Amino acid sequence: MLNKVVIFGVGLIGGSFARALKHAGAVNTVVGMGRSPASMARALELGIIDVVGGDMAEALNGADLVLLAAPVAQTGAILAAIAPHLRPGTIVTDAGSTKSDVVAAARAALKDKVAQFVPGHPIAGRETNGPDAAIIDLYQGKKVVLTPLAENSAADIETVAGAWRACGAILHTLSPQEHDKVFAAVSHLPHLLAFALVDDIANKPHAALLFQYAASGFRDFTRIAGSSPEMWRDISLANQPALLAELDAYMAQLTTLRAHLAASDGAAIEAVYANAQHARQQWSEAIETAETPAPK
Amino acid sequence: MLNKVVIFGVGLIGGSFARALKHAGAVNTVVGMGRSPASMARALELGIIDVVGGDMAEALNGADLVLLAAPVAQTGAILAAIAPHLRPGTIVTDAGSTKSDVVAAARAALKDKVAQFVPGHPIAGRETNGPDAAIIDLYQGKKVVLTPLAENSAADIETVAGAWRACGAILHTLSPQEHDKVFAAVSHLPHLLAFALVDDIANKPHAALLFQYAASGFRDFTRIAGSSPEMWRDISLANQPALLAELDAYMAQLTTLRAHLAASDGAAIEAVYANAQHARQQWSEAIETAETPAPK
Repeated sequence: MLNKVVIFGVGLIGGSFARALKHAGAVNTVVGMGRSPASMARALELGIIDVVGGDMAEALNGADLVLLAAPVAQTGAILAAIAPHLRPGTIVTDAGSTKSDVVAAARAALKDKVAQFVPGHPIAGRETNGPDAAIIDLYQGKKVVLTPLAENSAADIETVAGAWRACGAILHTLSPQEHDKVFAAVSHLPHLLAFALVDDIANKPHAALLFQYAASGFRDFTRIAGSSPEMWRDISLANQPALLAELDAYMAQLTTLRAHLAASDGAAIEAVYANAQHARQQWSEAIETAETPAPK
Repeated sequence: MLNKVVIFGVGLIGGSFARALKHAGAVNTVVGMGRSPASMARALELGIIDVVGGDMAEALNGADLVLLAAPVAQTGAILAAIAPHLRPGTIVTDAGSTKSDVVAAARAALKDKVAQFVPGHPIAGRETNGPDAAIIDLYQGKKVVLTPLAENSAADIETVAGAWRACGAILHTLSPQEHDKVFAAVSHLPHLLAFALVDDIANKPHAALLFQYAASGFRDFTRIAGSSPEMWRDISLANQPALLAELDAYMAQLTTLRAHLAASDGAAIEAVYANAQHARQQWSEAIETAETPAPK
């Protein structure tokens, strides 16, 4: 049981963490911290948080766990503001989509207290946001990746892992570098590609005609281009080296496929498409089985 | 009322056309033609067709309308087989995803009877196939694009349009060339990009690790990579010139975006992402409003 949890940012990610912990009876008091008084008031009204925090020292006093769930661009500033008031026994974690940059920011801001910071990334998201988007079961059956530091104690890592398990999540561990390479490939690159396609179409002179005939395939392919431009700008920049490497590999793949198409090489095109279809089918069967909760 | 409709291919597209026409009371007899005796027997058993056609002359005798809904690679061969038995008063249409190549095939096969061929493309599809996938309302509220020939009579075009309207579809008209440019951009290119991404990931040495962390964004982005490799090979080749042009434009877009990322130009990246998000939101609101049937 955690006595006091402080959450920076009480939208979809932070608010759902609070709701799930409360639902599991895993926390006594949740203190919300954030820049928008309206969001804080709404989170309080919805029962997501028990207290709207103001003064940093008071908010952190006696806290067992601090979750950073504000936009990642604020991570460094929040860590710097926390640092002077961070006492032994308080563990800080985050929910950022990139980890190498967060670790660097944490080392810079927390200095000799960095052992108290256990980086994390819940793999759950939607296009909705704000306290009203927060739900009890956002993390149910979903993965949370922790990327612990060499300085972290096993007990502190377990405190963070235990909180996420109480939310129904399945815990995984990667190094920050592994994490960033993996998510560059399976998340950050697809977002960049979807944004690029919609922008490409929107800038054509006959964009209105094109959009008129876009159908369900287009809808699903571009769903992630409905995500927050600011958030994905920050993620793209934060994971720049890994994302550039994945983008280069993909552009090389497109160059090859273009050559097959220009040469009318149906067998080579079909080989690429068939390998993709097969791999996706295997993935879909494995993942959907793993993430579908057992019937009650 | 159509007295006799002949359908080549009684899977999702052809079978749903038959079901919808029957449901609307718009046809007396549906004759199914196809290479798989098992599929034909199943379509008969399900009541999708009334007769399994065998002899081409007999099947076409007295037919008002013929729909080609077999894989597009068979279009030329089917048209050539139809040609000698095609009598005045019978109109032929198709459901292919590309139109310039179909028009060329129709001109080659039907010669002086080409005026009887009205090309079409219903914008409806799923990953399912076969007679069991056929449903009454596949076309309800969906677009059907006709790309008439200069030789078509207004009355023949209206017969095809009327059949699709009886299925609940909304009729649009484009030239074959316009059609192929539009669908290269909003359908064929996204399919190629999704296949390319999954193949790219599947070929990496750490593919298993990557797939393990792929989540809902990846699932939606790559859903169309679950489509038939043969069908999309054929579509890619059939629409080669327009698809190459769209692919080149997209690769130029990626090259620009890569330069922004390499230069850490957050403002330029955000401009692309924000334009895409805005355009997609507008599209989503307009399309989803248009395609959602009014409450009954």
